[in-house]
This record gives sequence, structure tokens and C-alpha cells, in this order.
Amino acid sequence: MPATETIHIPAREGRGARMRAGDRVRVIDPEGGQVADVFAFATDDPSEYHSAEHTRVYVNRLFPVVGEQFVTNRRRPILTLEADESPGVHDMLCAACDPTRYHGLGVEGWHASCQENLLGVMRELGVDHVEVPQPINLFMNIPIGADGELGWLPAPTRPGDSTTLRAELDCYLVVSACPQDLVQINAGVPGPIRLEIMRS
Amino acid sequence: MPATETIHIPAREGRGARMRAGDRVRVIDPEGGQVADVFAFATDDPSEYHSAEHTRVYVNRLFPVVGEQFVTNRRRPILTLEADESPGVHDMLCAACDPTRYHGLGVEGWHASCQENLLGVMRELGVDHVEVPQPINLFMNIPIGADGELGWLPAPTRPGDSTTLRAELDCYLVVSACPQDLVQINAGVPGPIRLEIMRS
Repeated sequence: MPATETIHIPAREGRGARMRAGDRVRVIDPEGGQVADVFAFATDDPSEYHSAEHTRVYVNRLFPVVGEQFVTNRRRPILTLEADESPGVHDMLCAACDPTRYHGLGVEGWHASCQENLLGVMRELGVDHVEVPQPINLFMNIPIGADGELGWLPAPTRPGDSTTLRAELDCYLVVSACPQDLVQINAGVPGPIRLEIMRS
Repeated sequence: MPATETIHIPAREGRGARMRAGDRVRVIDPEGGQVADVFAFATDDPSEYHSAEHTRVYVNRLFPVVGEQFVTNRRRPILTLEADESPGVHDMLCAACDPTRYHGLGVEGWHASCQENLLGVMRELGVDHVEVPQPINLFMNIPIGADGELGWLPAPTRPGDSTTLRAELDCYLVVSACPQDLVQINAGVPGPIRLEIMRS
């Protein structure tokens, strides 16, 4: 068995890792009801990154099923959805939360956000500028109504639920434990996320 | 009545215009059955551009309805959907077609694409580098199945159908008459698009 590295992501924070092609990461919601925003950037050239709109065309659906791949803005596979031990409810339609989103929701002053978490982690990994792509919002429950309306429901994950992704390219993987506490997607109180990285 | 400028976009090509806040553009499908990919970049700083994922959150649905606004990746309104004299079927889920997309569909050699059209028009407008955002795919018919599967159906527009957009920011507006002829979204044969710009 390969060694496993565990990364604890405190509530409202982000963490990242350099992945080599073949490495796997299990994204675990330890307490349940928590959304994990996932981003992936090619190590060789971070202007190539996971792109929701290219993935939708590639798999011909709103979100890959187990065994299918997420692709970059150059249509190269970057992650595979290898296993899903969760209710299987995920979102790839909604932008990462950012300071402007919280300002629009009535917050005065600073509020943690997935965008700030992403940019901070990428700086720690040595990358000073990246686009902020549409994230893979694991466990996020955004039902689409008959008229195209979006719902904002609590993540249906139970404690310990997880999704496993395999890297298909060498990439920077960043995960944010979404700090959204004004819309009820995190079941009211944002919680932590745990990553278990299995090196190939 | 303000003067109207008419821009003819030949089949498979792209054209653009500098819009001032308050200007309007009518995007017309003269022959019917044709998709128009629309992009908008803030003139002051083209790293701010229309963002599908931010617009979905802003309007709380997959596509704005008449009177609602499209916003940028900084959540500022950039376009308003002012009028829709078409069947009202549009897409904002699918990436612009590009050389890699056509290669994947079996094309050998060059094929026109919305991505190349966008980048060429922006260069003509004096902007050498832009991200390629998720377009506003006017008239594009991508139904979503119960399991999230995407369909690829012909554009339901009749000759002369149109959609009118109003600029909310000074912006570069680029429209590509989608050259897709391997998937049947353009009813088999890609056609032209006409723009009528009404200055404020």
C-alpha cells in the first residue's frame, strides 16, 4: 500500500498539494453537510486549469459520473472521478464565493471566501497569478428547477462521506472548505474538510 | 431615433464592436437555425469579462430572463437581456468550439472555431491576450435530461429572430457565427449572423 498523507483543512480555510499524474486524493467531509471547492491547475503551465464548461462538453452531462474525467480549458483530462462514497450530489455551475459575493449578501468587512483561499494557497505553492476558474463544488446541492431556477440546499453528506479523484496530469490541487454561512449550502455552520493523498 | 450600425457576420466568422454603456445590440439570425456565441470584455481592463458562473449565481437560474443582467467575473453587470424576439432557447453551459474540439470530432487540418474567431477579433480591436470565457450561446438548444445529460439539438430560431442586449459597462462585444457543422446545433449548415448596433 502506498503511503498516505493527511491534510486537515480547518473550517473556512483552504489547502493544496502538488499532485503527480497517478496520485489520488480522497476528499472527506468529516462532520457532514459541508461543501468542498476543488480547483486543479497544470503544474507545467497554470494557465491550463480544470474547466467546467469544457468538462460538460467532454462528458456530455452536467457532472461526470464515476470513471469519467474532468478536462482542462485545453480539453486534456486532468482529474478522474475515481470513486464516490457520498450521496453523489455535486455542483459545477456556481462560481467560487468571493468578497463581492459576501458584500452583496450584506456582509460588512472581511469574510473568508473560496476565492481568497484559492489565491492564498496558490501563492504558498509559488504561483502568484492564476485565473479563478469555476470550481468543482463537491457535495454542493444546487437543484435545477423546470424553468432553470437554481436551488441552494444543504449539502446532503453524512459524516465521513468522500469522493476520490485521480490526477491525470501533474497539477496543483487546491481545496477550500467553503466558508459560506449566509446561504444554507453548508447546513448552517461551515465545517472542516480532510484530504487523504495516496501517492502512486 | 439613434443611428443604427449594421455589421454582417459571414457564416463561420466573427466580428466585434466597442460598446459604450447604454448602447444596444440586436443579434439577428437572418436565415434561422444558427447559434451566435457572444463574449463581452470590459474596455478598461479586459481581464474583467462576462462570466457564466457568476451570472448564474446573480440571477439564480441557468440563463437570465428578459430584464435581467449578465455579470462579469467581478460580479458587475455588463449586459442586460433587453428583449428576446426568438424562441428564448439559449445556452450558457458549453465552452466555445476550438481546434481541439474539432480534432476530437475527427476533423483533420484546420476548421474555423468560435475560439479562433474571438481571438482574431480581439486582436483587431487591439487586445492581444484574453482568457477565452464561457460564451453566451444565443439560440443554442442544449436540453438537460433528468440525469443531467446534455442534448445537442438544432437552434429553433426562424429567419429574422433576434435577441437585444444593452451594454451596462463600456465593453468589447464579440459575436461568432458558430461554425459547428459536425454536431447538429446549427441545423446542419452554419449560417450568418447580423448585428444592429443602436448607439445611446
